[in-house]
Amino acid sequence: MSSHGQDQQLERLTFFSDAVFAIAITLLVIEIQVPDLKGGDDAAWLEALGHLIPHFLGFVLSFVVVGALWAAHHRVFGMLQKYGPSLVWRNLALLMSVAFMPFSSALMSTHPTERIPEMFYSLNLFIAGLLQWRLFRTALRAPFLHEGVAIADITAMRRRTLALPLMSTLSFALAFWIPGMSNIPLILMPLVVAWFARGGFRRRDVPAPQEG
Amino acid sequence: MSSHGQDQQLERLTFFSDAVFAIAITLLVIEIQVPDLKGGDDAAWLEALGHLIPHFLGFVLSFVVVGALWAAHHRVFGMLQKYGPSLVWRNLALLMSVAFMPFSSALMSTHPTERIPEMFYSLNLFIAGLLQWRLFRTALRAPFLHEGVAIADITAMRRRTLALPLMSTLSFALAFWIPGMSNIPLILMPLVVAWFARGGFRRRDVPAPQEG
Amino acid sequence: MSSHGQDQQLERLTFFSDAVFAIAITLLVIEIQVPDLKGGDDAAWLEALGHLIPHFLGFVLSFVVVGALWAAHHRVFGMLQKYGPSLVWRNLALLMSVAFMPFSSALMSTHPTERIPEMFYSLNLFIAGLLQWRLFRTALRAPFLHEGVAIADITAMRRRTLALPLMSTLSFALAFWIPGMSNIPLILMPLVVAWFARGGFRRRDVPAPQEG
Amino acid sequence: MSSHGQDQQLERLTFFSDAVFAIAITLLVIEIQVPDLKGGDDAAWLEALGHLIPHFLGFVLSFVVVGALWAAHHRVFGMLQKYGPSLVWRNLALLMSVAFMPFSSALMSTHPTERIPEMFYSLNLFIAGLLQWRLFRTALRAPFLHEGVAIADITAMRRRTLALPLMSTLSFALAFWIPGMSNIPLILMPLVVAWFARGGFRRRDVPAPQEG
Repeated sequence: MSSHGQDQQLERLTFFSDAVFAIAITLLVIEIQVPDLKGGDDAAWLEALGHLIPHFLGFVLSFVVVGALWAAHHRVFGMLQKYGPSLVWRNLALLMSVAFMPFSSALMSTHPTERIPEMFYSLNLFIAGLLQWRLFRTALRAPFLHEGVAIADITAMRRRTLALPLMSTLSFALAFWIPGMSNIPLILMPLVVAWFARGGFRRRDVPAPQEG
Repeated sequence: MSSHGQDQQLERLTFFSDAVFAIAITLLVIEIQVPDLKGGDDAAWLEALGHLIPHFLGFVLSFVVVGALWAAHHRVFGMLQKYGPSLVWRNLALLMSVAFMPFSSALMSTHPTERIPEMFYSLNLFIAGLLQWRLFRTALRAPFLHEGVAIADITAMRRRTLALPLMSTLSFALAFWIPGMSNIPLILMPLVVAWFARGGFRRRDVPAPQEG
Repeated sequence: MSSHGQDQQLERLTFFSDAVFAIAITLLVIEIQVPDLKGGDDAAWLEALGHLIPHFLGFVLSFVVVGALWAAHHRVFGMLQKYGPSLVWRNLALLMSVAFMPFSSALMSTHPTERIPEMFYSLNLFIAGLLQWRLFRTALRAPFLHEGVAIADITAMRRRTLALPLMSTLSFALAFWIPGMSNIPLILMPLVVAWFARGGFRRRDVPAPQEG
Repeated sequence: MSSHGQDQQLERLTFFSDAVFAIAITLLVIEIQVPDLKGGDDAAWLEALGHLIPHFLGFVLSFVVVGALWAAHHRVFGMLQKYGPSLVWRNLALLMSVAFMPFSSALMSTHPTERIPEMFYSLNLFIAGLLQWRLFRTALRAPFLHEGVAIADITAMRRRTLALPLMSTLSFALAFWIPGMSNIPLILMPLVVAWFARGGFRRRDVPAPQEG
């Protein structure tokens, strides 16, 4: 089974995941409706597009979040040498939460200042974060992990995985108390990811891992 | 034809299948409509989302079923060394039944307690199960099958293929007599797959095949 | 440029094409609307699903046509060793006509007995057929064609390419004179493809090419 | 990390990009609505389809623009040997502007003679052009660029990247002053790309780079 062995099967698993990420991220735009304006002047058009601003921001935010989930997936799966059924099903669970994003994103974008839609959106991200954490915890050890991967890389990746659950919990809480502000933790997430990846307070002298 | 020979052509066939599986599984969410609630309070929102619960469950169920079909496809195509026109068209037939799932799933989810939509959904799964069985029966023998594959793996895979036709038949019958309970056999399917894969009553002493 | 040379670039071109084929073929189902039936009995449901039969048949027909276009593309690109800008743009032109299919298919399926929608559908297939013929005419010769490919394979492939333009012309004419019968030539297409591939009247003694 | 090293990770990045391009380009058709005509005669049908002509033209124009963005991406990524986080995120930014195209394209197509929708469409293309320019500026140098790539190829590619920002600026200005003419610069873009790629006025004696 040389040519269709573990390597190729792992590649196909990765490939299928990529496709689901790519479709989910591109479907985000489908939910934005073209305004149905007949014979409006420029002011009417600007107003109509102005009403869509929460949708545009929601699109950008969800695109960045799904993009970050993909980038982390991309990086972790590049560290593997084997796969197995536990990986396949944990991966499918993560993909399910990602494939659900176009709905949550549309729900939040159509009602950007209401509590329940925002909490629903944060909950989806929280679940995606948990499932990512669960998948990576299994993937980043024997027998799946490639032996050549540096410990520092694994540690950085594991820490980074905590960012989404943490920030979506904050976002969930904010949505409850101050609806309309709930996306702030998510917007700050890149900073948190960078901070986590560098080991929090103590920045160590390991060579900077090549990130992706 | 070294570099674009059988190997690469088989890979491309697999790839095309992966893409169809990935798109079908991600399109499942498209059918869930965002509730059109203007100025509702929290209670109204919770009620509106509550009404969507059958859609959420239908999404999860269909995601798991299509995911299982993909995982089996992934595993079987990893055992092949060649392909041919009979494989291409049997594969397209299976993909057609998978690509149809977003419709059946939406039909069942919008009418979760009615007989005909549930029977329609079970019928789609039954046809997908038959077409999978037909594809794998052709694929898992000469000249397509890779010579290095263990007999035990093939037998386990063949048995496993019976689970979907069987459980969707049960589901179809349940939909007729007790609508609303019809998805129970499908929910139990992972157990049945595991049971079938292990050879039913007689669990033999073959080394556990690497599943996926 | 060993690892990212012609081989890999050709592979990526093929891959992109596969993805467009896969998305177009899976989007065909999106156009079928779930009937909006509230509290209907079984008879009402069967009637509602009965009204969708033209959509189901249109889905199957378009799936088979796009599937056949993909299978031919798959086969021809497996015979190449190089690519160039003329191939890239001829390929994009074919993909455009394929990506348009979900619209034509929906138009024809919603109005299965009317002349103009049927002629529009046939026209789309005719254009797809022409663009496929144009792409393959360029691809199946130097410098793109792999040297190891047998002449008989190329001839069979070239003949096969005539089937879609021919049958869609017939379909177009039938749509004009006998709307409702216009898909018959398309349904017969697999037979015509087989007939063409074998060299028409004179079946020669070449070894049967491995089709796909 | 031989088998899952830089090469494979770069390939996966490319692959994910291809999938997003392919989905965005195929989703363009989704926005064209099937006319809801019951019992119309041929004249009514021709008129209904006539009203869709701006949609058809918009589909073709956007397909060609996204196709050109993909072809350039395809060509540039074929020149790389490494990747890194800066590439990943610049790439995601470009993909975001591409994934947004189905919305802008639908907006412009439903209102083909109005100023604001046309300016919005041009703006989307301008942003895509800028993000492409930014991505390629980073990609086409050390450490990402493959050492074997000829300087002439890089220069041609860099020049070519200026075409979309320039022509979409013209298109934006035209949309402001003469709405309805605003797509002319975009339609002329292939000529401009060719002109830029050849080095403007002074056509030099370098061997023609293999374009894609």
